[in-house]
Amino acid sequence: MRIVVTNCNTTQEMTEEIVRGARAAAGPGTTVTGLTPSWGPESAEGWLDSYLSAAAVLDALRTYEGPPYDAVVMAGFGEHGREGARELLDVPVVDITEAAAHLACLLGRRYGVVTTLERSCGQIEDSLETAGVGRNCVAVVGTGLGVLDLGDTDRTEAAFLAAAERARAAGAEVLVLGCAGMTGLQRVVGEKLGVPVVDGVGAAVRLAESLVGLGLTTSRAGSYAKPVRKRREWGRGVG
Amino acid sequence: MRIVVTNCNTTQEMTEEIVRGARAAAGPGTTVTGLTPSWGPESAEGWLDSYLSAAAVLDALRTYEGPPYDAVVMAGFGEHGREGARELLDVPVVDITEAAAHLACLLGRRYGVVTTLERSCGQIEDSLETAGVGRNCVAVVGTGLGVLDLGDTDRTEAAFLAAAERARAAGAEVLVLGCAGMTGLQRVVGEKLGVPVVDGVGAAVRLAESLVGLGLTTSRAGSYAKPVRKRREWGRGVG
Amino acid sequence: MRIVVTNCNTTQEMTEEIVRGARAAAGPGTTVTGLTPSWGPESAEGWLDSYLSAAAVLDALRTYEGPPYDAVVMAGFGEHGREGARELLDVPVVDITEAAAHLACLLGRRYGVVTTLERSCGQIEDSLETAGVGRNCVAVVGTGLGVLDLGDTDRTEAAFLAAAERARAAGAEVLVLGCAGMTGLQRVVGEKLGVPVVDGVGAAVRLAESLVGLGLTTSRAGSYAKPVRKRREWGRGVG
Amino acid sequence: MRIVVTNCNTTQEMTEEIVRGARAAAGPGTTVTGLTPSWGPESAEGWLDSYLSAAAVLDALRTYEGPPYDAVVMAGFGEHGREGARELLDVPVVDITEAAAHLACLLGRRYGVVTTLERSCGQIEDSLETAGVGRNCVAVVGTGLGVLDLGDTDRTEAAFLAAAERARAAGAEVLVLGCAGMTGLQRVVGEKLGVPVVDGVGAAVRLAESLVGLGLTTSRAGSYAKPVRKRREWGRGVG
Amino acid sequence: MRIVVTNCNTTQEMTEEIVRGARAAAGPGTTVTGLTPSWGPESAEGWLDSYLSAAAVLDALRTYEGPPYDAVVMAGFGEHGREGARELLDVPVVDITEAAAHLACLLGRRYGVVTTLERSCGQIEDSLETAGVGRNCVAVVGTGLGVLDLGDTDRTEAAFLAAAERARAAGAEVLVLGCAGMTGLQRVVGEKLGVPVVDGVGAAVRLAESLVGLGLTTSRAGSYAKPVRKRREWGRGVG
Amino acid sequence: MRIVVTNCNTTQEMTEEIVRGARAAAGPGTTVTGLTPSWGPESAEGWLDSYLSAAAVLDALRTYEGPPYDAVVMAGFGEHGREGARELLDVPVVDITEAAAHLACLLGRRYGVVTTLERSCGQIEDSLETAGVGRNCVAVVGTGLGVLDLGDTDRTEAAFLAAAERARAAGAEVLVLGCAGMTGLQRVVGEKLGVPVVDGVGAAVRLAESLVGLGLTTSRAGSYAKPVRKRREWGRGVG
Repeated sequence: MRIVVTNCNTTQEMTEEIVRGARAAAGPGTTVTGLTPSWGPESAEGWLDSYLSAAAVLDALRTYEGPPYDAVVMAGFGEHGREGARELLDVPVVDITEAAAHLACLLGRRYGVVTTLERSCGQIEDSLETAGVGRNCVAVVGTGLGVLDLGDTDRTEAAFLAAAERARAAGAEVLVLGCAGMTGLQRVVGEKLGVPVVDGVGAAVRLAESLVGLGLTTSRAGSYAKPVRKRREWGRGVG
Repeated sequence: MRIVVTNCNTTQEMTEEIVRGARAAAGPGTTVTGLTPSWGPESAEGWLDSYLSAAAVLDALRTYEGPPYDAVVMAGFGEHGREGARELLDVPVVDITEAAAHLACLLGRRYGVVTTLERSCGQIEDSLETAGVGRNCVAVVGTGLGVLDLGDTDRTEAAFLAAAERARAAGAEVLVLGCAGMTGLQRVVGEKLGVPVVDGVGAAVRLAESLVGLGLTTSRAGSYAKPVRKRREWGRGVG
Repeated sequence: MRIVVTNCNTTQEMTEEIVRGARAAAGPGTTVTGLTPSWGPESAEGWLDSYLSAAAVLDALRTYEGPPYDAVVMAGFGEHGREGARELLDVPVVDITEAAAHLACLLGRRYGVVTTLERSCGQIEDSLETAGVGRNCVAVVGTGLGVLDLGDTDRTEAAFLAAAERARAAGAEVLVLGCAGMTGLQRVVGEKLGVPVVDGVGAAVRLAESLVGLGLTTSRAGSYAKPVRKRREWGRGVG
Repeated sequence: MRIVVTNCNTTQEMTEEIVRGARAAAGPGTTVTGLTPSWGPESAEGWLDSYLSAAAVLDALRTYEGPPYDAVVMAGFGEHGREGARELLDVPVVDITEAAAHLACLLGRRYGVVTTLERSCGQIEDSLETAGVGRNCVAVVGTGLGVLDLGDTDRTEAAFLAAAERARAAGAEVLVLGCAGMTGLQRVVGEKLGVPVVDGVGAAVRLAESLVGLGLTTSRAGSYAKPVRKRREWGRGVG
Repeated sequence: MRIVVTNCNTTQEMTEEIVRGARAAAGPGTTVTGLTPSWGPESAEGWLDSYLSAAAVLDALRTYEGPPYDAVVMAGFGEHGREGARELLDVPVVDITEAAAHLACLLGRRYGVVTTLERSCGQIEDSLETAGVGRNCVAVVGTGLGVLDLGDTDRTEAAFLAAAERARAAGAEVLVLGCAGMTGLQRVVGEKLGVPVVDGVGAAVRLAESLVGLGLTTSRAGSYAKPVRKRREWGRGVG
Repeated sequence: MRIVVTNCNTTQEMTEEIVRGARAAAGPGTTVTGLTPSWGPESAEGWLDSYLSAAAVLDALRTYEGPPYDAVVMAGFGEHGREGARELLDVPVVDITEAAAHLACLLGRRYGVVTTLERSCGQIEDSLETAGVGRNCVAVVGTGLGVLDLGDTDRTEAAFLAAAERARAAGAEVLVLGCAGMTGLQRVVGEKLGVPVVDGVGAAVRLAESLVGLGLTTSRAGSYAKPVRKRREWGRGVG
């Protein structure tokens, strides 16, 4: 099966890193294709970025011209857009925020999220809540690092471990990597912390495979009906 | 004071109608300027439209070149974007969804919302919840009418009254017009129903005036910090 | 328009201070009249005081003989009575507790309240919850000062700033003055804290003006129906 | 032990009826004394009445001059005042609303309340919520009867049974009599409905006996500290 | 009346201690009979133990051959089984977890639980939540002591006091002994802490007496219907 | 990888049916082994059965002597035991109740469960709540069929469709098969209803594969620490 993984920002290197994380997690027989929006923010940090990102990712999906695919993974932690993609597409859509939380709930009674800037915490809380998996989340904490700072792996690891202690003190028995750009970090910090650490990219790939394997896709009843036909313009001066 | 009222869609007639509603509600000394996004959906119905709309409205605000203003009213009921505008702007931002709910809470113990298509109900519920005013909402019900069908006022009124009965049966003591395009309907249906009916456009204008009058604006601490400087592209091929 | 502002206690000086705060916040064309109950506690601190105050304030409203008015502001932070006034009166009633919370929700994602004695915190939490605006409140903290100690402005300011830090640490992005007697304090502490500080008296005046301006008043459907005619005695030996 | 049972209204016949209900429920060795407030409403229906009643009942308790007692039962279903009495008195205070709910939770997974006028439902919901026992309540329904109509037992029984069906349909496995004046009705309607029916008066008497028997009384830490000494006037012209 | 008190583990000494606690709390005319399961864990600490204990206690109740009884108290704090006993038996069933919480709610606005090992905290939280009394619980904290360590009373008292401070700091106005084996500790720690301390064993005995005295027993409507007749084997090779 | 699927009852035919469902859902390379407890109820319907089942299933797992395995799926919908298995085992444990809910959350905004007897609904609600996925569940409805009646497929299908309409009317956009014995029914009812129908057995197998594939297993921090060494007897007269 083929899974399209959408980056939430325009930074191609990050798409590649996310694709690497997705491939490392995918089961045999799964092909992963990365999709970078042609517009939007170079990193998504805060609501302004997130709304811009959501529109750009939806635009990338609706104008996608690659090979057919079976599911979409949306790789923006706490970013908007998943419900729109569910309306747009006939295949299952899994967002990495909810995916990480779903798996975390299976591994411990309470989980925590460690993310980038403090400003992103509120968005993540809202995203978990509306996805229906907020109840067992005891803390969303920031590391103070920007998305594009995550390339410095030593600094990232140290900041993650420090923030993770705050989540553990709040009762987290499982931790979640709160940014797509952290993918790959789970093993090293997991060992140091002695608790499971869930990477949303990997979690979402596996959940997407699960839905496809079970023949399940988004309900068209109620919320995620197909978009109504109408005039829509995606950016100034373009159709 | 000047209030900019943003339409969430590209339909100029609707902007004009909303501006009329806003002006009818505004206090003396308030000037209302309508702002129609130059791109986006012609009407916002569902999440796909809403995310597209959010980006387009934020783009309109960031590229606005009119006279200085004191507050922004975002006139899309249940539509996304308000948090992004709060990051972007130094003046208060009031969304009509939350505004209507805030006033409705002052008028009865439980309120209900009557909106357009059923597919919009979930979005509105999420918007009320994250705005912190969902607790006293007992029902969000659809009329089955599309946004662009609201011009037929007899049909709209009849559909509103029928849907309102369902909200009343669920315990609503106050009703809210669940679409910016319904502005003006509140008086006639209010009289027929015998309960207060709150129009979000008018409510938001008054709340915006209140914040400005009190010298209050969005907190920069935590969630709504100023956007980080970075490269952002607003639509394909445009900067 | 005329707004009657009820003090929740019998201390005339506090009524005057509240009226000053209300007038400072009111829009042009609004007249503010203070109303001091002729009986009740000299300050309201705790439930016993609050219930006594509620009855005394309702008695003052029902026996009011001044000029006609358009709305009532109830200036007791966390004190009981607002629902009773809504039953009694045909004009809108706004309580300063809920009013401050409504505006605070528009200014940040989470807010906190700084009040007088610790014993008042629970009452305030209950009041916010039943008003439907408790969800985004992260902390209600006490300064340890009694209501009648607030006249010492240096001490009050220092105590407020210390308590505010606790609310900020709990995630508050906006603060609320948790006592009518603190009115006026918002500007100085707001500047020092660098976050918006909402005064309930001003907030309630503006919300009352908003409701009146929009032609809205309390719903008579369900909870706030007119009181049933019956024999009621307001205090021993008086009718 | 002696338990003082306070009526929430000035109707002496109702006090007597409540005392009969309390005595029928009390264990051996318990003496029940009725206390009728000397002022207040002749029946409590709605918030205005309830706040007036709260002050009058507190006044009756603070000026009580009868024999010493070990606990107080407050017999007003959904009426205000219990927290004030807890501040005022050194003995345990049990309100019939919470008492009925506490026992109902032990008898089934979900319970419902059948009360008098529809207008009282909201107050009862708030009272259960703040008492901490609202979670398992699935419905509060009205019979349409006023408090002083309950003397007509055939009509009351019929109205109760009809309303009880609505609560049962909502999932109630246990029912609660939602008015002190219904005391005694539990057995006949319980048999007809085939589910347990809890009378708050009896429940509160038993809970009060339990607390006294275990040597427990209200905590003075935090919320229910002793009232601060100050000037309070209980009604116009009286001290 | 006769109350059967079930220990949740096979340690006979603990049954005896619990029976002593129950008898100390019981009213005149109540006979307390202890029941120790013939299989199960020697102490219940964690979910595995708790599920084993639940089955063993239910088996002990269904095969009980002693004198007739009027109510059952289940003396395992946070342990499973209460709903099953309600299905099985025609007499009231009161679990000490919920019982302590019910009484604690009457004594202060918020309560906390101090238990044995940290691993038990989650179970207790779940038990309070499903019993409908979780709302007013602000903290469940562990002492780090195992159930069978509680015999060392000095160490237990010191550990309890230390943990209680954490619950108090979280806002608890009342404390609950979070283990049946702590019964008797309430008086000494209550005096030292200056707040009421509720023992679940005593609370449950009093609540059971209350239900019996009021002629109330478990509803058969809905959740707690009688068990369906079927083949059940209670342990390997036994019928 | 090998997954052990535990039936919650002693009916071997049902184990076989569940294993068939699990195999149909499993990915390539997964071997499914069924495990039937050697004692317990022949079907689990209600809390008594569920607690008995939990102990018997845990006993079967602890005494399992088959080939090594990588994960456990617990195939009892709404039944107890999952937390105990997590303590006991080093491999991931997935319960079909939570598994179905996790996937349902990815397919629609709100889901509903259709189960067997009405008496099971409460248990399922509690199970979803404590698993952290109850928020988006709008209804748990019964078909009135016992577990062992499900063999009559025509009757089961008809009863399911009728009950499903009630869940749909309550807002469910996705449905969940509320009994392990319904496995296989999802396709035929899904087509007739026009919404996705999730089978918990298949969902749990896929989630277990996902966790194993990602190298994740239960956290030992906090709730699911390894069982403390102690004496435990699993059924009368056996060790």
